[in-house]
Amino acid sequence: MASVIANGQSVKPKWDTPLFKGLYAATLTPFKPDGTLDVDGYLEYAKHLLSFKDSEGNYMLAGVYANGTTGESMSMSTEERKLATEAWMKAFKELEPDAAKRPKVITHIGSDSLPDCQVLAAHAEQIGADGIAVMPPHFFRPTNEKPIVDFLSKIASHAPNTPFLYYEFPVITGVTVPAYRVIKLAVEKIPTFQGAKMTTQDVGDIARSTLRFPHLSILSGYEETFLAHLLASGTGSIGMCFSLTPAPFYRMLRTMGIYPSNHPKTGTPFVAPTLTPELLAGLRKDLSQILKLLDLIGEVGSFKGRHGLSVTKVLMRERYGLEFGEPRSPLTAVSEDAELRIVKGMRARLDTLLV
Amino acid sequence: MASVIANGQSVKPKWDTPLFKGLYAATLTPFKPDGTLDVDGYLEYAKHLLSFKDSEGNYMLAGVYANGTTGESMSMSTEERKLATEAWMKAFKELEPDAAKRPKVITHIGSDSLPDCQVLAAHAEQIGADGIAVMPPHFFRPTNEKPIVDFLSKIASHAPNTPFLYYEFPVITGVTVPAYRVIKLAVEKIPTFQGAKMTTQDVGDIARSTLRFPHLSILSGYEETFLAHLLASGTGSIGMCFSLTPAPFYRMLRTMGIYPSNHPKTGTPFVAPTLTPELLAGLRKDLSQILKLLDLIGEVGSFKGRHGLSVTKVLMRERYGLEFGEPRSPLTAVSEDAELRIVKGMRARLDTLLV
Amino acid sequence: MASVIANGQSVKPKWDTPLFKGLYAATLTPFKPDGTLDVDGYLEYAKHLLSFKDSEGNYMLAGVYANGTTGESMSMSTEERKLATEAWMKAFKELEPDAAKRPKVITHIGSDSLPDCQVLAAHAEQIGADGIAVMPPHFFRPTNEKPIVDFLSKIASHAPNTPFLYYEFPVITGVTVPAYRVIKLAVEKIPTFQGAKMTTQDVGDIARSTLRFPHLSILSGYEETFLAHLLASGTGSIGMCFSLTPAPFYRMLRTMGIYPSNHPKTGTPFVAPTLTPELLAGLRKDLSQILKLLDLIGEVGSFKGRHGLSVTKVLMRERYGLEFGEPRSPLTAVSEDAELRIVKGMRARLDTLLV
Amino acid sequence: MASVIANGQSVKPKWDTPLFKGLYAATLTPFKPDGTLDVDGYLEYAKHLLSFKDSEGNYMLAGVYANGTTGESMSMSTEERKLATEAWMKAFKELEPDAAKRPKVITHIGSDSLPDCQVLAAHAEQIGADGIAVMPPHFFRPTNEKPIVDFLSKIASHAPNTPFLYYEFPVITGVTVPAYRVIKLAVEKIPTFQGAKMTTQDVGDIARSTLRFPHLSILSGYEETFLAHLLASGTGSIGMCFSLTPAPFYRMLRTMGIYPSNHPKTGTPFVAPTLTPELLAGLRKDLSQILKLLDLIGEVGSFKGRHGLSVTKVLMRERYGLEFGEPRSPLTAVSEDAELRIVKGMRARLDTLLV
Repeated sequence: MASVIANGQSVKPKWDTPLFKGLYAATLTPFKPDGTLDVDGYLEYAKHLLSFKDSEGNYMLAGVYANGTTGESMSMSTEERKLATEAWMKAFKELEPDAAKRPKVITHIGSDSLPDCQVLAAHAEQIGADGIAVMPPHFFRPTNEKPIVDFLSKIASHAPNTPFLYYEFPVITGVTVPAYRVIKLAVEKIPTFQGAKMTTQDVGDIARSTLRFPHLSILSGYEETFLAHLLASGTGSIGMCFSLTPAPFYRMLRTMGIYPSNHPKTGTPFVAPTLTPELLAGLRKDLSQILKLLDLIGEVGSFKGRHGLSVTKVLMRERYGLEFGEPRSPLTAVSEDAELRIVKGMRARLDTLLV
Repeated sequence: MASVIANGQSVKPKWDTPLFKGLYAATLTPFKPDGTLDVDGYLEYAKHLLSFKDSEGNYMLAGVYANGTTGESMSMSTEERKLATEAWMKAFKELEPDAAKRPKVITHIGSDSLPDCQVLAAHAEQIGADGIAVMPPHFFRPTNEKPIVDFLSKIASHAPNTPFLYYEFPVITGVTVPAYRVIKLAVEKIPTFQGAKMTTQDVGDIARSTLRFPHLSILSGYEETFLAHLLASGTGSIGMCFSLTPAPFYRMLRTMGIYPSNHPKTGTPFVAPTLTPELLAGLRKDLSQILKLLDLIGEVGSFKGRHGLSVTKVLMRERYGLEFGEPRSPLTAVSEDAELRIVKGMRARLDTLLV
Repeated sequence: MASVIANGQSVKPKWDTPLFKGLYAATLTPFKPDGTLDVDGYLEYAKHLLSFKDSEGNYMLAGVYANGTTGESMSMSTEERKLATEAWMKAFKELEPDAAKRPKVITHIGSDSLPDCQVLAAHAEQIGADGIAVMPPHFFRPTNEKPIVDFLSKIASHAPNTPFLYYEFPVITGVTVPAYRVIKLAVEKIPTFQGAKMTTQDVGDIARSTLRFPHLSILSGYEETFLAHLLASGTGSIGMCFSLTPAPFYRMLRTMGIYPSNHPKTGTPFVAPTLTPELLAGLRKDLSQILKLLDLIGEVGSFKGRHGLSVTKVLMRERYGLEFGEPRSPLTAVSEDAELRIVKGMRARLDTLLV
Repeated sequence: MASVIANGQSVKPKWDTPLFKGLYAATLTPFKPDGTLDVDGYLEYAKHLLSFKDSEGNYMLAGVYANGTTGESMSMSTEERKLATEAWMKAFKELEPDAAKRPKVITHIGSDSLPDCQVLAAHAEQIGADGIAVMPPHFFRPTNEKPIVDFLSKIASHAPNTPFLYYEFPVITGVTVPAYRVIKLAVEKIPTFQGAKMTTQDVGDIARSTLRFPHLSILSGYEETFLAHLLASGTGSIGMCFSLTPAPFYRMLRTMGIYPSNHPKTGTPFVAPTLTPELLAGLRKDLSQILKLLDLIGEVGSFKGRHGLSVTKVLMRERYGLEFGEPRSPLTAVSEDAELRIVKGMRARLDTLLV
C-alpha cells in the first residue's frame, strides 16, 4: 500500500506556534420545525456568542467549533455541512469586520467516508475556514495510530493550506488509541497538523501532548478537565457549555496567563503568571461552578438516555430565547412534560451559575 | 415530537410471508488501484456467485446483500453506494433473464445521516431493488428501541413499496438493544417491515424473533449461528463466506427443509424434514467444516487488527482470480510479506474446505 | 518460572469419556434471617430436586452444580463453601442410597485467591465430590489462555483424582478468552481435565469444543443456548432454571438421544436419534417455553439491576414453599412492594410454564 | 431488608478533618521462591521506604497502603492478609519509635466475600491499623451507590474506631458508579467514613469530591492525576511508583502547600501557597518526569499483558536490590529473556528519572 505512512521521513510543520488559543464554542445546529437545516439561524446565534465580552470589551470566545458532536454533524448530509460552515463564516464576517478580532471558525469535517471527508476538506479551504478537524473513523475502529494517521493524511492533503486538528472522543467513537500516539505520528506525517481536540478524561495523555508539543494547539474537550489542562500547558478548550456561559472558563484562562487567538495581546510572548492564594482560590471557585453547571445538565441529560445537547438546546431557548428546534433522529428531544418541568425548574439555579 | 412512534396504533404488514429465504452473499466492494469504485468489477463477481449450483442446477445463492459491512459501505459516498446497487441489479438482469430464478438484491442503505439514508431508500425503490436494510445509527447510539424504530420508520417511508430489513450488528455499531425488541416495535410501526439480519451471538434473541414472527425474514449474520438459527425456524442467512463457498450452508438449509426464494419450489408450503441419524451427522460435519473455514480466516484476520474482509479479498484473488483491490482507509490491506505468506499457505487447506 | 505450562509435553487424560451428561441444577444458597449459612436448608432443597422425575421414574436431574454464581460462592467464606458442599453430599447420600442413581455433586471452588482454591480442591477430593469447577480469576483478568491454564493446573493438582471442569462466564468475570482455547491447552496440561461449563452466547466456540473433544463433558451455561448446544454434540447443561423446572430441558435432552449420567441406560453407546417432524416441532415448542420462562425472570431481574437469582429465590418460595432467605450483600433482595407485586403476578404465568 | 441504608437519618462523622495527607506507597507483596508469603521481607522494604527523606530530614512518605491491587491482595488468603498487615505495623514500630513521625498503615481489606471483609476489619482494629480501605465487590458489580454503601457499612461496623476509606478502581473492578456518589452517601451512613482512594481518570468527579468534602481524605490513585488532584484541593495520593521514587510527587505536594500527616507541621492550618512562575515551571517539570516514569513502566507493562506490578518488582530488584519474588498466579513474571533485556536496558533511563 503506497501511503504517506510507509514513508519514514518526517515533514516540517507549516506553523511553529499554536494558532488556536482560548475558548471555542462547540456549536449547536439549528433545525427548522420540518427538520431541515435552519441556515438563517446562524446569524442570531453568532450575535449571541459575540455578546460575551470581558471588562475590557474583548470577546470571551476565540471562535467556534462547527459541526462537531454537539453540532450533530454525523446526522447531516455533506451538503448541509457545507452550508453550516459557510453560514458561520458569513455571520462572523458580517458581525466583526476586524479580521484580527473576528472569532475563528474551525469546522469538523470527519466521518466514516473518506471521499466525503476529502470533499469537505477542499470546500473548507476554498471558503477560507480557519481550521479543519477530523475524528477517527468510528465504524471500522482502528486499534493503533497508523491507520488513523493514514486516514487523516489522506484528508489533510485536500486542504494543504488549512490548519488541521485531530478530534479525539473515545467515549463516542469507540476508538481508544491514546491521542498522544496519534499526535506524535501526525506531526511527522502531516505538514498542516496543528493539534487536537482531546475529549478525554486521560489527563496524563493530555499532559504528555501539551508538554511535549508546545507548538501545537492542544484543546481540551471536557469542561471538567479544563483546569488540569491549563496547568499542564494546554492552550484552550472547545466546549458545549461555552454557548451558555464562557465566563468561568475565561477567568481561568486569563488567570493562567493565556490570551485568546483573537485578543489584541495574543502575540505577546507567554509569561507564566504568579498565582496568589486569592487567584488559586478563584480557580477552585470557578472549577466548582463549572462542575455544578455540568451536574445540572447531566441531571436531565442522563434521564432516559437523553444527550446533553438536547438539554442544552432547551436551556438556550429558556435562558436566551434562541430557538434551535429539535435534535435530529436518532437523538430525541426533551419533550415530555416531566422533563420540561425539570429543565424549567433549573432556571433559578441557572441564574446563579451563569454569571 | 410528532412521530410515528407516538402513535399507538399498529400497522398492517404489507407482506404476510417471508420474502427472503436462503443464502445471501454479503458482498465485497471492488476498488480500482487508484482507490475509486470499480463499477465494472461487479459483472465478473456476479458470474462467480451464479457459478455455485446444486446437483439439480439451481443456484445455491438466493441473492446478495450489497453495501453491508463486508461491502465497506460506511467508507463510501452516497453516490458510490447508488452506483454499486445499480451495478448489482444490472449484472443479475444480464446474467439471468428469468426473474423467478434471478438472485435478489438487498441493499444496505443505513448510515448515521438520516437525509442520506432517505435519499438512498428512494433510489433503491426507484431502481427496483428487492429489499433495503438499515443498521441503527452508530455515532449517537440509541439505548432503547424507540429511537431506533423512529429512525428506521423515517427512512422506510421513502421506499413505501420495498421490503425493509433491520440490520443488527452490536459488535460493530455498539448498539446493544436486542433486535427482538426492535423487531417487535417495527412490526407495529412500519408497514414494509420484513425482517432482520441478526448479526449476533445471542441465539436466545434469534429464537425469540424467529418463533414469534413466522411471517418475517429473519436471517442470521454470523456463520457460526446458522445451524442454531435454522433449528429455531430461521429462514436463511447473510454471510461473507458465501462468496468463497456456499456449499456447506446450502446443504444445511436443504436438510432443514428450506427452499431459497429463487428456487423453483420456493412456494411449496413448508414441511419439516425427518432428520435421520445420517442427516444429523451431516449437519454436524458441515458445521465443523464451517468453523474450520472461519478459523482459517480468523487466523490472519485477527493478525494486527486486520478485518476479515481484507483476508477474504486476498482469498478470492488466490482461489478464484477475482480482483477486489485494497480495502479503503481506515481498513488496511493484507499486504506485508509475512501476512501474504500465511494467506498463500492457506491455499492447500482451502482446497480441502471449499468443496 | 517453573510451571506446568513451560513443559511442552502433553498429559494423558484420566478419563476418556464424558462423565457429566444431562442436567445439573446451578443451586441457590439458603441463608438464615441473620445472614448466616442455613446448612439445614439443603436437605429440603435436595428433596425438591429429586421430586422431578420422568414417566419412567428416573430423576430428571443428573446432579447439582454447587457454589456457582447462582450459589453466591464469591460472597461466601472458604469455610462456608466447605460446609455447603458437604451438605449436598450428605443430603443426596441420605435421599438416594443407590450410588448409580444418585445425583452427582460438582462443586465450584474458584476464586481470585490461589491458596483458597487449593484448600477447597483438597477438601472436595477428601469428601468425595464428583467434580470440581474453577472460573478464571476475575480481578487480575488474564488476556490469553496460558495464565488461565497455569492457574487451573495449580489447583487441579491438589485434587488429583477428581474430575476438573473449567467454568467460563465472560459477562461476569470479564475474561473474554474463548473457552475453546483454554480447553485445548488444559487437555494437554491437566490429567484430570474433564470439560467445561460454557456460559457463553458464542455457539461457534461451543461447537468447536464439543465437536473437537468428544471425550469431554461440555455443558452449556445459558438456557438459551441449550438446544444449539445439543445439536452440536453437547452433553448437557448447568442452569439456574432447573430448580424451577427441568422438564422442557429434559425432553430436549432425551429427544436428542442423550441419557443423563445417573440414568440406568447411561452406559449405552450413543445412537443419534431420528428426528421426525413431530419431534422437531416439540424441540421448538420447548425452546419457546424456555424463552418465555427466561423473559419472565428477566422482567424483574433487569428491574433496578436485580440479579436473576434474587428473583428465582422469590419464585422458589412462591411456587414451592422453599425458603432461601435474602441474597447476601452486595446483591439486594426483591423486597420492595412494587417488585413483589410483579413477582406474585407471575404466579399464573408460571403455572402455565412450569409443566 | 433491614439495613443502614433504609434509615433516612445521617450520622455524625467521627473525625472532622482529613487524617491522611501526603504520599502513601501502594506496596508490593514479597513472596518466597516457593510462592508463599515472605513475612520477613517487610522489614527491609520498610527501611527502604523510610530512606526517602527531604532536605529537612522528614520522611517523604506519610505511610503505606498495604494489600491493595499492587499488593496482590485478591490473590492472598485471609490469613496471609492478616500477616502482611501485622508485618507492616511491626516494621514501622521497630524503625520509628516516635508515633507522630511514624508512617501510617492503611490496609486494604476488601474482597467479594462479606464475612472475610468483616473478619479483616475486626483484625485491623485489634492490631491498631491507622486506616482500612474497601473496594466495591467486583464479582456481583453494583450499578448504583446504594448496594455499595450497604456493603461498606456492614464492614465498617466491625471496626468502629478505625478510619474507613472507599477504594475506587473502575478499570479493574468494573464498577463504574462515580466515587462522588458513593462518598456522598457513605458520609451520611458510616460514622467512621474518612475518604477515598480515587483510582480514576475522572478529574471532574475527583474535584466534586475534594471541593465538596474538605473534611475527608481524598487521595488520588493514578500518578497522572496527582497534580490536577492537588489543584482541586486533594490531600495526597496512593501510588505504586512511590516505592521507586516519591521525590517529584513530594515536591509537588509541598509546592501546593500540603504537609504530610506525619510531618512536624501537619497540624498547621492550611495556607494556600503563592505560585511563582518558577514554582509553576517546577510543577510542570515534575509532572513531565512522572509521565516519563509511567511510560517506562508501561513499555514493558503493556508487553504481552504484563501487569505494571510485575515490572515494578523487577525495577525494585534492579535498582535497590530488594527481592519480591514472582507475582502470584494468575499474574505472570517478567521472566522471558526478551523482556528482562528491556527492563535492564531501562536502568540508565531510570537513573535519570529517579532523582
